[in-house]
This record gives sequence, structure tokens and C-alpha cells, in this order.
Amino acid sequence: MRKIIFMLSEFEYIWNAKLSVLYKFTVMPKISEKAGMMPASPIRKLVPYAEAAKRRGVKVYHLNIGQPDIHTPEIALNAVKNMDLKVIEYTHSAGNESYRRKLAESYRKIGIDIDHTEIIVTTGGSEAVLFAFMTCLNPGEEVITFEPFYANYNGFAITAGVKIVPVRSFIKDDFALPSIDEIEKKITPKTKAILICNPNNPTGALYSKEELMKLGEIVKKHKLFLFSDEVYREFCYGAEHFSVMQLEGIRDNAVLLDSVSKRYSMCGVRIGALITHNKEILAAALKFAQARLCPPELGQLAAEAALDTPKEYFREVYDEYIARRDFMVNTLNQMPGVYCPLPRGAFYTVVKLPIDDADRFAQWLLEDFNYKNQTVMVAPATGFYFTPGAGKNELRVAYVLKIDDLRNAMETLAEALKVYPGRVD
Amino acid sequence: MRKIIFMLSEFEYIWNAKLSVLYKFTVMPKISEKAGMMPASPIRKLVPYAEAAKRRGVKVYHLNIGQPDIHTPEIALNAVKNMDLKVIEYTHSAGNESYRRKLAESYRKIGIDIDHTEIIVTTGGSEAVLFAFMTCLNPGEEVITFEPFYANYNGFAITAGVKIVPVRSFIKDDFALPSIDEIEKKITPKTKAILICNPNNPTGALYSKEELMKLGEIVKKHKLFLFSDEVYREFCYGAEHFSVMQLEGIRDNAVLLDSVSKRYSMCGVRIGALITHNKEILAAALKFAQARLCPPELGQLAAEAALDTPKEYFREVYDEYIARRDFMVNTLNQMPGVYCPLPRGAFYTVVKLPIDDADRFAQWLLEDFNYKNQTVMVAPATGFYFTPGAGKNELRVAYVLKIDDLRNAMETLAEALKVYPGRVD
Repeated sequence: MRKIIFMLSEFEYIWNAKLSVLYKFTVMPKISEKAGMMPASPIRKLVPYAEAAKRRGVKVYHLNIGQPDIHTPEIALNAVKNMDLKVIEYTHSAGNESYRRKLAESYRKIGIDIDHTEIIVTTGGSEAVLFAFMTCLNPGEEVITFEPFYANYNGFAITAGVKIVPVRSFIKDDFALPSIDEIEKKITPKTKAILICNPNNPTGALYSKEELMKLGEIVKKHKLFLFSDEVYREFCYGAEHFSVMQLEGIRDNAVLLDSVSKRYSMCGVRIGALITHNKEILAAALKFAQARLCPPELGQLAAEAALDTPKEYFREVYDEYIARRDFMVNTLNQMPGVYCPLPRGAFYTVVKLPIDDADRFAQWLLEDFNYKNQTVMVAPATGFYFTPGAGKNELRVAYVLKIDDLRNAMETLAEALKVYPGRVD
Repeated sequence: MRKIIFMLSEFEYIWNAKLSVLYKFTVMPKISEKAGMMPASPIRKLVPYAEAAKRRGVKVYHLNIGQPDIHTPEIALNAVKNMDLKVIEYTHSAGNESYRRKLAESYRKIGIDIDHTEIIVTTGGSEAVLFAFMTCLNPGEEVITFEPFYANYNGFAITAGVKIVPVRSFIKDDFALPSIDEIEKKITPKTKAILICNPNNPTGALYSKEELMKLGEIVKKHKLFLFSDEVYREFCYGAEHFSVMQLEGIRDNAVLLDSVSKRYSMCGVRIGALITHNKEILAAALKFAQARLCPPELGQLAAEAALDTPKEYFREVYDEYIARRDFMVNTLNQMPGVYCPLPRGAFYTVVKLPIDDADRFAQWLLEDFNYKNQTVMVAPATGFYFTPGAGKNELRVAYVLKIDDLRNAMETLAEALKVYPGRVD
């Protein structure tokens, strides 16, 4: 009798489980296909392993994220602390006019001749990329970019329904811009734009005036837009930055995507900008901007004040990054089997290691390894490539830590490479 | 000879103009179709006329926008002023955990049983709507909503490539929810969600528990999501607010879209939230959130502090709005040929006037009319309807001004109606 009851209740259990699956299947609406296509952040997906390591008492050095430890300029912090607003109101959808006027002036000082009506202030550089895609490309149309590339471009492309077509750049060439031939091979009737990041995240490459002029010719010849993400403009080492806005003859093709996040080490204010001479794009982007009402007011207060940051601030930051870069790149290149190009801009580099699989290595560092009770968190380069399998023995590392911390991190990485079971020479 | 030169230069001029058109046509890439479809803001499109009136020295009372004059709570302003951050860093993509925990607690206090993992903090309520569309609907799929509706829903629908299917509500019914029959008539195989705004912008309608239960039955029966924009929840007059999150049996269908903008009169901080029990939606929305990195940090500081706003603040605000509403609605209904329903929530109402064309009337008020050197700016209701021609004799007016200003505005409107050349009785 007991057995029969058991069988009944077991049957009931199975029946309930089946019902539950059936319920989900028959009663619940499905979420979107875009949601399925959206990639999880390659930078953030290892977070649970890092958290577990920290809980075990292991010190984790973060080489994986572009969050600088540099202080935000006092003048920007004070603008927020001393605000005398009684109501934090909506601002103009294109951003406060006072901010746009002062921002335009600051561009003119560096040879980018624009006025405040040619700026749409955005919620971070992220929104500038999204507005560029939404405004210029129809769903299904193509934007060419150079891999490895900033992973979130892919997220914005999926959001806008547009297709990223990658042209590969190689670590053996220090990630120089691919040749015109290679680029033109990928141009189809659906190609609408070329997107560059200059200086480049993740590679640290800085494109020269000559490289940009080549791109200018291509976009003119094939009637394309040229989107340029220049959020690391102040981080150029030993060479001048040249902006797409300084190219001649592509006034209506060029769109500058910018952000205050890295420039003033205030990623959290979420203030960026879309800048172009093209009136059609400006009018259209403004409509997308109006739908979301306005960019954040408090961030705009900080960003406007930050334009008066004293020059010494940038000199100190520059010296600090040069020192960090040189230390890290030299140390990496002394490790057997490791190759790291010298980044000429931004604060990242992609480094080649004698390992079988960067994703496995990054996880192993957090799960199975420690040296003097410390380890490092890195971003596998695979997340920055579009082509499956590319970047399997590469990592993106950011040099956003103090030299002392970087020294510990490099020592730890060197030890890890000695004992990693997947080492290949 | 001179004549020949003139003819030549004229020819050259014409030729250059033709070349310029030809140039645009042959050399420039086209912008996107979405850009063309995006509506200009119905609330902001009259701005140039208002600016011209102000330049002529005419005082303009703004009944057109939902920017309250109520002070932001001191506790929120002080949190920003007293911040001790040295670096304004990225936050968690889903928002600061401390804020989400405290926010979840505040929802539990009003009978919405969620925890902090069921909240994605967004950049304004705007982004919450966009994430809901992106996460739940494929391009071409349909979301049913009730017109007149908040005009920017249409902007987010175009951004996401989804189709808004309106079911009309009528001023003669005080904009009550349409019947189940009327709603079900619009359900097709492509319908994926129903979107409500409760209390309603622009109508001021407040849906009852019974009306919401009807909606709950429909979404269950037809396997739909139910998105509910409840940003005006604190502005309910004489009735309790009932949230979709309190409906039984649609745990995985309901998505709450929220914002701190109106609640604490801080529209400029750009902090909202997407809230649901549906784990699939949360996981997907987090990926969209990761792509844009994080919501604004300074706004989150203000929003977290604002959760401790003393109850007196809300009581005062409530009393103020009730007084403004009653004054405005009574005054409007005393004007010959005018009908204004009594709004039971939010701080807008849609009013019917004895006029030929609301757009013409709104422009005429700014361009051709003044009373004692003052005029009013209103939002033609046509911009809130999807159906062409609907709302032609209706305006949305916001009661966000002090009673004294409202009195002047109403007096001016009454005089305007007496002399408006397009009056129809």
C-alpha cells in the first residue's frame, strides 16, 4: 500500500514538473530574438569567479576594466557640490546650451571647427554610438569596423538591428589599420558606414593622419558615413591626435562620437556627445534625443565645469599613464613567449600569451590559481573579436592601476604563466 | 560684353546650384528611414513661436509641459552636495546595489513584493520603456496601448522597430479603459504586449483594480506581456493606486516601468527602473543595460537619498496639486463650450474646446494673441493620438503652475476663446 502511495506521489511530482514546463510553454509569451542575440559583457562575465576568489581571501588585481583610479578634477566635483538648484529640471534635449557653447569653443581650440548647434549632448558615449546607428542605418544595413573592437558596438548594432562587418587587424602589425584593399573587399550595396575607435580600445593603436585620409577617400568614393569614437583623444603618447572632423571633403560624412568619461575620469556622470556638420543627421538625432527627454543634468554640470580643468591635471595624468604603460609593456615583453605591442593611445593593450585558450586561462586565474594569495582578472580578447576563434591566445589588459599594484599584478601573471596547465610554446 | 559676362556668371550660378544638388544626391549617403519616421515632440514643436512671443515682451504661461515647479526634496539635493566621491565611477549596470535594496524595500511597503534582483535601474523611465520593448518584442510585432497616449511611446516603438496599435479611449467616458471587447478586437498573432500608463499621462485617468483585473485576464488568455508605466503613482486623488505588480496570476507577464522624475520633482536626474518577476526579461534587460554601461551615478545618489523624503513633503505636494487641479478644472468647465473631465491622477488633463483645430489654436495663441500682454502655451492633443484627425478640438494642459499663475493663465485662455477666429460652437 505504501508503495502505491509512493508511486502515486512520484507520478504526481513528475506530472507537476511536466505541467510546469507545459505551463511555461503554453502560457508565457516569448521574449525577443534581439534579447537572445545580445552578448553578455566579455568584460563583466567573469565577475562571479572574481567575487568567489575575493570571498576566499584572495586579492584580485583588476586589469580587466577601463575604470581609471585617477581622481576626477576638483573643479568638476565642486560644480556638483556647490550647485544651487532648487529643482533638478529637464534640460534641453540636445543638452544645456551653456555647456554646448563652451564645449564647441574647446573643440575649436584643438582645430575642430564646430559650433554649439552641431552638438547633441548624449547620455554617455554609448548613446552617441546608438544615435549614430539609429539615425544613419536601416535595419539590415552594414557598418564596417576593425576587429578586435570595443565589444559594446555589437550590443548597439543588435539594438539598432544593423550588421557589423569586421575587417581584421593583427597583433603582428601592432593592430595598424587594414589596407584599403582589405576594407574595400567588405563593401557591399548594404554598407552604410565605417566605424573607427581612435585611439583604439582595446588595442591601443593610434591611427595617423595618413591612415585617416585613406579612410576619408574610401567613404567619399563609396558614399559612406564615417563614425569616429574619439573618447580617448587626450591619451595619445608621442604623437598628435588627428580627428575625422579635420579631414577635408567629407564634411557631411563625418560623425564624431565623444565622451567625458575617460578624459576627466568620471565614467559615472554619463555624458557624451554626437558631433557632426551634417544637418540631416543633427535634425534626426535630435528627435531620438527628444524621445528620451534629456541627458542627465548633474552630469552636465560636472562636464561643463570640467572644461576649465587646469592643464597641470592633464600633464600629471599623462605622465602617470606613460609610466604605467612603459612599465607594463616592458614587463610583459620580458616574459617568455609573450608579445605586447607598444600602445600609442588609450590605456589598454592586447597582449599575446603562450596559452591554449584565453577564456579558460582567465577563469583558471580566478578559480585555481593564486600567488602570495593574490591573482589577476583579465579580459579574454575573444570577446573583442567577431570572427569565431580569433584572439584565443590574446588578452586585453588595462593599465589603470598604480605602478605598485601593476608590479604585483605583473609578478602574479608571470608566475601564473609558469604553472598554467594549458601553456603552449 | 558686360551682358555676356553677366549671362556667363548667371549661368555659372545656376550651374553651381545644380551641381550642389547633384553633389548631395550622388555623393552623400542617405540617413535611415527610422529617422524620417521619428515624430518631432508634440510638446516641444511650438517652442520657436513661444520664444518669438517672449522676445516681443509677452509673458507666456507654460501649460504645455510636465516640468513641475515643486522643489526637489532637500534630502536629495543634500546627498549630491555632500557627496565625498573622489572619482565618479561606473556603477553596476543594473544600478547601485544599495539603491536597489532600499528601493525594493520601499516597494514592499506599498504592497509590491519584489527584491533588489528584480530591479534594473534605468536612465529615466524612458530607458525602461525602451528596454521593455527591446527585450520583449521583435521588430514588426505589436504593442496595444490606449490613445491618447504619452507621445514618446511612439518614439521608443520606432527605435525598437515595433508597431503601436492604439485602442481609443474617449473624453465622453472621461478616458476610462476601453472594454475587453474593444481591446480583444485589436489582438492579432503579432500582438505581444499591452502598455498602460496609470495614472495616465495625458488624460489624468486612474484605472481601478477591477479594470486592471480585466487586463490581467486578457494578457493571461492571449499570452501577452503587460507593461505598466506608473511614474505618477504618488499623484492619485481620492483613490488608492493599484499596481500591475499586485495582480495575481500574471507574475511573469507584468513589467513595471517607473521613474523618480515626477515623484521627487527631479526630472533632470534621469533615474528610472524596470521591475519584473520574470527572470528571462531581467537577464535580457541586463544585457542591454551592460551595453550602455550604467545609469548616472549622481542621479542614483539623489534617488537613493530621496527614498527618505519625509511624509510631510508628499502631503504638501498632494495638497498643492489637488488645489491646482480643482481650481483649473472648475475654471475650465465654467467657460462656455468647454469640457474638462476631473483628472484622478497625474497632473495633466485633456480638455475639449469649442475650436476648429487645436494645432492652429495653439500656434495662434503664441503668434497672434495676447491679453494684458500675456498668453498661454498648450499642447495640442493631436500629438497624443495615433489616429489621424483624432483630438482636433482637444488640448493637453498640465497643472504644474502656482495657483496665481494658473489664475492668470485661465483668464487669458478664457479671453482667447472669446476672440479666436476658428471658434466653433
